[in-house]
Amino acid sequence: MDNLKPLQAYLEEKKRLIEEALDKYYPKIRGYGKRVAEAAQYSLKAGGKRLRPILCLMGYELYRNSSEDILPFACGLECIHTYSLIHDDLPCMDDDDFRRGKPSCHKAFDEATAILAGDGLLTLAFELFTHPEVVKRISPLALTKAIHKVAQAVGFRGMVAGQMADLLAEGKRGTLQQLKWIHAHKTVAFIEASLVSGALLAEAPSKEIKILSKFGQQLGLIFQIVDDLLDIIGDEKTLGKPVKSDLKKKKLTYPSLFGLEKTRKMAEEMTEEALNTLNKLEKDTTYLKELTLYILNRAH
Amino acid sequence: MDNLKPLQAYLEEKKRLIEEALDKYYPKIRGYGKRVAEAAQYSLKAGGKRLRPILCLMGYELYRNSSEDILPFACGLECIHTYSLIHDDLPCMDDDDFRRGKPSCHKAFDEATAILAGDGLLTLAFELFTHPEVVKRISPLALTKAIHKVAQAVGFRGMVAGQMADLLAEGKRGTLQQLKWIHAHKTVAFIEASLVSGALLAEAPSKEIKILSKFGQQLGLIFQIVDDLLDIIGDEKTLGKPVKSDLKKKKLTYPSLFGLEKTRKMAEEMTEEALNTLNKLEKDTTYLKELTLYILNRAH
Repeated sequence: MDNLKPLQAYLEEKKRLIEEALDKYYPKIRGYGKRVAEAAQYSLKAGGKRLRPILCLMGYELYRNSSEDILPFACGLECIHTYSLIHDDLPCMDDDDFRRGKPSCHKAFDEATAILAGDGLLTLAFELFTHPEVVKRISPLALTKAIHKVAQAVGFRGMVAGQMADLLAEGKRGTLQQLKWIHAHKTVAFIEASLVSGALLAEAPSKEIKILSKFGQQLGLIFQIVDDLLDIIGDEKTLGKPVKSDLKKKKLTYPSLFGLEKTRKMAEEMTEEALNTLNKLEKDTTYLKELTLYILNRAH
Repeated sequence: MDNLKPLQAYLEEKKRLIEEALDKYYPKIRGYGKRVAEAAQYSLKAGGKRLRPILCLMGYELYRNSSEDILPFACGLECIHTYSLIHDDLPCMDDDDFRRGKPSCHKAFDEATAILAGDGLLTLAFELFTHPEVVKRISPLALTKAIHKVAQAVGFRGMVAGQMADLLAEGKRGTLQQLKWIHAHKTVAFIEASLVSGALLAEAPSKEIKILSKFGQQLGLIFQIVDDLLDIIGDEKTLGKPVKSDLKKKKLTYPSLFGLEKTRKMAEEMTEEALNTLNKLEKDTTYLKELTLYILNRAH
């Protein structure tokens, strides 16, 4: 396609749109419940790439022009992501004091507030998914399918199970099969669902949903493997969190099983495969391809 | 209406239907994520009145015959209720070691597992709300409205805010205005939404939704006030949890502000008002009326 913006400009524009929408659709809370809404807002506004909502918009834009139709839905995905970070950082979970260069939610506030802030964000996601602004523009049937897809990806058969397995594996010798299971559930399913939900909202044909689903899984795994690499070779300042925390916690990761060099090579091979998957789609997938390379080569 | 079962038999039948559906629709988890799904199941099967899903079925039955259409949706409400109990019981929240006569989830398992079990149940609720069995029987537009209603009631503008305010009020002198705010957000909004969601799923006219909403708020407040009373005068064995825990924690309650006698009288007056609200509805509200009296006079 001609006249495409460079990926970087595209991502920045979408990020701005999403952050404006997060402000616009965030409930205005007065009275006694203010503290928890502020704690959630603190984490939600701490920055981040906004990868999941952007993937949702990208999935939608393969089929429709105005992805602004679904901005509240996309914002809901970021709420789910932020909730998962807040709960993961808790002392009884990964016990991380810093996130995106700032104290974690339970450090800036307290544990009870952080748990409730996460609960509130997870709930807000589904409130935004069914926001009147979305309902009036999207087929309600397509909307229920997209919600179902996301809920499955982040629940007992997805992210929640992955986080449980990750905690149980800490400090123990693990296998590749176990590691694949953890990544597939903890990170990959939600990244895949973010992209696919956009395509579902656009009522994409089910054959193409399948291809996007496969690509989303490949992209999610590349994302996670690079994350594991950055924990070892990344720069603390750029990452906004302490490096080598996986090593300290003896987390099961690709580098812990294969070493740095082999892991990097595996990520590159997976990138090739992901690009091949996209070639099966008769759509302009330029941005998705560029995004895949960007994720492979990112520094944070 | 003739030939109505007594309320007790009606409630038992609905409870059985819901518990069977909870079993049927609960995801079968294998592999590394099993522990968290088992912890959630432990709390979900610990019993309880199943009041919220029953209210949803009752709201639906005012307009439609076969409330079995919406059983997965109703089960989702019970998942939300159970999640809220698991998180409320955590040490950094209300710190309760017993629930329904059994160790609380974090006692039977551990804190991380309990937090994740709650997260998983909250997510499962929305998976069940959009279950294909519901989607094929209910107008998808009505479904998105019901989901939106419930999500609002249990999020930053509802239950989550109420729990935050409840924690912040502990041990401090509170006002009636503050107590009303806490009850309205922590308990009442979700009870109201449970009933109203059923009516929304049945596409009830908005004028009648308003009446049901008002009744739901009155019923919710009666429920909460009786709960506060039972904490003082109830029987530990029947309740399945230690009594006088509100007193020990210096919780702000109706009895703490008004004493036992006056509180009981207020609950009775509210019951009168709730029954009057139902009279405005040109529907057979026999069961809802009987349920209101049952809730006023319950022992657990």
